[in-house]
This record gives sequence, C-alpha cells and structure tokens, in this order.
Amino acid sequence: MLEDKNTPRTKLEELGEFGLIDHLTKNFEIKHKSTVKGIGDDAAILDYNQEKMVVTTDLLVEGVHFDLSYMPLKHLGYKAVMVNLSDVYAMNATAKQITVSIAVSNRFPLEALEEFYDGVATACKIYNVDLIGGDTTSSTKGMLISITALGAAVTEKITQRSGAKENDLLVVSGDLGGAYLGLQVLEREKEVFKVNPNNQPDLEPYSYIVERQLKPEARKDIIELLEKLDVTPTAMIDISDGLSSEILHICKASKVGCNLFEDKIPLDPTVISAAEEFKMDGTMIALSGGEDYELLFTVDQKDFPKIKANPNLTVIGHMTDKSNGQHLIARDGSQIPLKAQGWNSFEN
Amino acid sequence: MLEDKNTPRTKLEELGEFGLIDHLTKNFEIKHKSTVKGIGDDAAILDYNQEKMVVTTDLLVEGVHFDLSYMPLKHLGYKAVMVNLSDVYAMNATAKQITVSIAVSNRFPLEALEEFYDGVATACKIYNVDLIGGDTTSSTKGMLISITALGAAVTEKITQRSGAKENDLLVVSGDLGGAYLGLQVLEREKEVFKVNPNNQPDLEPYSYIVERQLKPEARKDIIELLEKLDVTPTAMIDISDGLSSEILHICKASKVGCNLFEDKIPLDPTVISAAEEFKMDGTMIALSGGEDYELLFTVDQKDFPKIKANPNLTVIGHMTDKSNGQHLIARDGSQIPLKAQGWNSFEN
Repeated sequence: MLEDKNTPRTKLEELGEFGLIDHLTKNFEIKHKSTVKGIGDDAAILDYNQEKMVVTTDLLVEGVHFDLSYMPLKHLGYKAVMVNLSDVYAMNATAKQITVSIAVSNRFPLEALEEFYDGVATACKIYNVDLIGGDTTSSTKGMLISITALGAAVTEKITQRSGAKENDLLVVSGDLGGAYLGLQVLEREKEVFKVNPNNQPDLEPYSYIVERQLKPEARKDIIELLEKLDVTPTAMIDISDGLSSEILHICKASKVGCNLFEDKIPLDPTVISAAEEFKMDGTMIALSGGEDYELLFTVDQKDFPKIKANPNLTVIGHMTDKSNGQHLIARDGSQIPLKAQGWNSFEN
Repeated sequence: MLEDKNTPRTKLEELGEFGLIDHLTKNFEIKHKSTVKGIGDDAAILDYNQEKMVVTTDLLVEGVHFDLSYMPLKHLGYKAVMVNLSDVYAMNATAKQITVSIAVSNRFPLEALEEFYDGVATACKIYNVDLIGGDTTSSTKGMLISITALGAAVTEKITQRSGAKENDLLVVSGDLGGAYLGLQVLEREKEVFKVNPNNQPDLEPYSYIVERQLKPEARKDIIELLEKLDVTPTAMIDISDGLSSEILHICKASKVGCNLFEDKIPLDPTVISAAEEFKMDGTMIALSGGEDYELLFTVDQKDFPKIKANPNLTVIGHMTDKSNGQHLIARDGSQIPLKAQGWNSFEN
C-alpha cells in the first residue's frame, strides 16, 4: 500500500505516443504460428487456418473495477489479462493472442506503465499468449484498460452456454467466494490505513483469499484437464459475477432448469473462517461474490466416471426441465429460487 | 450544440448490465458467414477458413479524443467505428466484425447510449460489418469507447507498411486537411456559443470540412477500387495523424526515403479558403492535421497507367533510397525535411 517515493518518474510526453508503445512492448516475443504479424502496423495479421476463432473483450475502469490503493500495477496487468483469458477458456478454446489498450492521466509516470506491462508480460508468458496490438493514450481521469483476447478451437470442442440438457451434471472447478472475501479484507485494511498510516497490516492469515482477489488465475489447466479426460462439456461459462448469476445464464441460454445443492458448493477453509469473521454467509458469498474466475460447466451423466475422482472438479447439482425453475437446495432440504445478484456496475 | 431537454431520460441502473447490452444490441443483424456466433456468450466465434485475419483496436476518451459539446452521440458512434475500419482497410483487407465497449458515467441516460449505438448500427449497415461483442460498464468520469475491428484478406493481398521500394510512387486517396479545419471551425463556434448561447452558428459555408470532422468515412471504396484496377499496393497506412507522420511510418518500416511534392498534395477548395481564414498554411495542415482517414500507399511504377486517371487517387511523390532521407519538395523547389508533427495525446 505504501508507494516508494524514490522510484524514478519519467513523464509520458517525453516519449510520445509511438515511442511509448515501442518502449512498453519491445520485450514481448511472438510465440504462435497463428500470429503472422503482431504490433507495428495498422492491424495485426492472424492465420487460424482450419480452426475456429473465439473473440472476447473487457473494459476495466479505475474506481469501478479496481482500486490502485491496494492493487499493485503489476498485479493489475496480470489480472486484466486473466479476466479476458478466462472468457476464452470458458469457450473450451485455447487463448492465443491479446490486444491491450490503456488510457492514463498525467499522474502516471512511465515507470507505472512499465509495471503494468510487466504484469501483462508475465501473464503472456505463463499462459502462452501473444500480445499483438493495442493503443496507449491519455485520459482526463484515472486509468482505463481495454483488452481483447483471441483463441482457437476445433468446431467440435467449442462450448457455448446454450448446450446444457436436462439431467446433465453441473460442475465447478476450484473453490468459490475467495476473491470477494479477499476484497473485503483489503477494503478493511484500507480504512485502517486511512486512520493510521503507520499501521502495518498483517495479511498473512488471509493470504489465500487476498491472492484470489489480487492475482486470480484463469483456468487454462481445466481446459487441458478436460481434454485429457476426454470430456467435452455441454455448456460452459466462467464465474465472474457469482455462481448464481452464471447458473442463470446457462439455464436461460440452454432453456433448462437447475437444482444446485448448497452442501456441495466448494468453499476453502480460509473462506469459511473469513466469512464467519465478517459475519457473512459462505453460501451467499459463493452465490453472489464474483471474480473467482473458476469455470462452471455441464456434462452428460455418462461422463461422470471420468470426472468424479478429480480434486479440481466438484459436481454441485444437475439440470432439470425448464418448468422446474432454478433452485438452491439448502442443507435443510428447502428449495430457494436462485436470483442473479451478480455485481451490477451501474449501481455503484 | 443545443440539447433537447424534453427527451426521455431512463437511468441505466434500471436495466442492469445484461439488460443494457441486450437492449442496445437487439436490432443488430449478423451478415457474415464468418460470424458463427455473435453477442451472447463468453466470446464470439468466428470462422475465417482459408483467409488471413487482421485485428486492430482503438481507445477513445471523452475530453481527449472527442468533445460531446459539438459531437452528436450518433456521429460519435459512427466515427468510432470508422476510425477502426480505416485501419482494417489500410491492410488492404475487408472489415467483417467489430466489438464495441463503452464506459459511461451516470450523467448519461439510456437514450444517450441508444443514440451512440444508432451511429454504430448505421456504420455496421453501410460498411457491412457484424457487431459481435463488447462490454458496457460505468465510468467515474465521462465516456470511454474501445473498439476492436476484425477483417479478412487472402495472403497475397494483405498490405503492410513495410513493403515500399525505391522508385515506388506515393499515392493518397481523396483530399487532406479538412477534418482538422472542421475541428477549428467547431472549436471557434463553441467559444462563440459560450459567450452568447442564443447565437445560432452558420456552419453552411463549412459543411464539407465540418462533416470531414464529425462524420468521416473509412475508404472501403478505395480497397474495392484497387481490387477492380488490379493494383496491390506495396505498402499502405491510413492517415489518422497527418500525412507527414504517416509517410515517416512507411519509410521507417520499409527502410526507404521519400520525396513528397508540395504542389501535388490534394486540398479541397473549402480547405484552402478556410485555411486562409484561420491564417494557417494549407500544406502544413495536410502534413500535420490528422483525422482525415484517407489511405496513403505506395505502388510499383508499372501500375501507374492503372491509377493515373482516377479522380480518387493522387500521386504525391515517390520513394527514394533510404540515404536520401524524407523530404517535402516545396513549390519553390527547396527541400524541407519531413517531421512527425502528428497529434500526441500525451501533450494535451
């Protein structure tokens, strides 16, 4: 949270727009054959040959989607890429290329952008993705990030939200609620810091959930796991707005109902204890918390033997006829209608 | 410039994020076979088969790239699409799909976004482009637009900036300087309006240059014309930052020099008279003005007979050995080194 006042500050106008792009992107290497030409022309050139392409884009605004008072710029660069790659994986596709555009006000020196691009570069390296373009410009206030991600898959593998059938199993990767609770911890420490700037927060007990918030990972490994297990989901979505909202998206697109079992929802022990500390309900946080970037998908029952023993995957319910609606089956057996309480950026 | 205070104002939070996207995009039709799936999933799905794809993206910020006090939102939607399509055409490719993301503060009612999307829809219709995705979110200040455009071309046709050779002819479409002078007129009228809001500006004598600023057209027709004339440029770029800056981009990427002839630079009579009125030099405006979105390209001398009679195309110079440098040959025969005085968004 503390800023090092001794870091060098190079004003952006010293480089100019083209110099800035060159400078920030000079260490990015092209890794994919499908990237024929990356940065440096009016447009990038791609060759997807026989594979289908998937395209997704996200716009992140300082003060709405992120808070630089506890989000280090390197983490922000990493997370901004993750948010987009997660959408590519949610199509059961392999992420191949990204474009990254940022607008910053003049309070940001070059070194801040370098940190941001450091995070982008780390994400590109780990997730094997090429940076192929973007735009760098000034803003009148704060920082804005727009990323577009491109990926590939053969037609038979591409998984939309619309393919879930009655009796399909509902499966989720990893565990839920951590990112939201991590945010609560960071917000609380920010308030403490405002009152007493000398107070050094001890985030150690919360390291898992804080990392879920600050440095989420897109589940590329799950796509690879599904390939290895020879499972093609019937429908898939990534969890950015909370489990409840995402289930309703699949049900709407697939025209099915759903029974979700409360006792099956995977919660990390840290999430359970932090939820208690914040006097919140763990189930509610998983349903509405958002930003976990886990994958939620449906599979045919015949695929159950392939996934049942896997520690990365949890069966949390099953799809029903549309007329049954969408319900949470609580621990006491009661049925509670699912509502989309996902994050609405216009209500903030 | 005047706002109609009686138009209905629907608050964005009434619709929520998903409702808003649905509402704004419901009338967009998919036109291309390559658009397998557009809006409505984690990502769009595209099939480019044997063709190469080109990808370009731009970020536009209110107060930096546009001023809503004289830019109607419908025009802004149209222009934001043009800026991106222009980059696709500058690769000698056909534009096929776009994603459109916007962030707006709560001062914008739904009706404002509808107007903006009206302009996007008009552009999509006229330029035969599919809207396939995007993001709609809130900002803490003003309006932000991020557009990514995708296009296709066979490998042999794709034209990068790097292919210009010594002795190639330098060619420009249309005429230059209009958009910049149109901006000067609008800025002047804005100042007049501030002093006396009852003053009704007479923009009639400036209609050509004001339209060049508010409603530019990307030169899809030039790409089609080149195809018809059986001319594949050796290098191409679109003129967004001014002729001088774009020539230098081609020279740098192609490792060549250039002689640009002042008396060949195409200027519309309205541009010449408005330049005089503003006590500016027409040549300087063409060199540094920007936002004309004409195409600048080089062709082999053997193609000269194919282009020479065309009213849409003007030969303005030729490429030289790199050691000669890049020069403007003035009307009096003097050689003036070209400088990139294009618009630098970080200097504003």
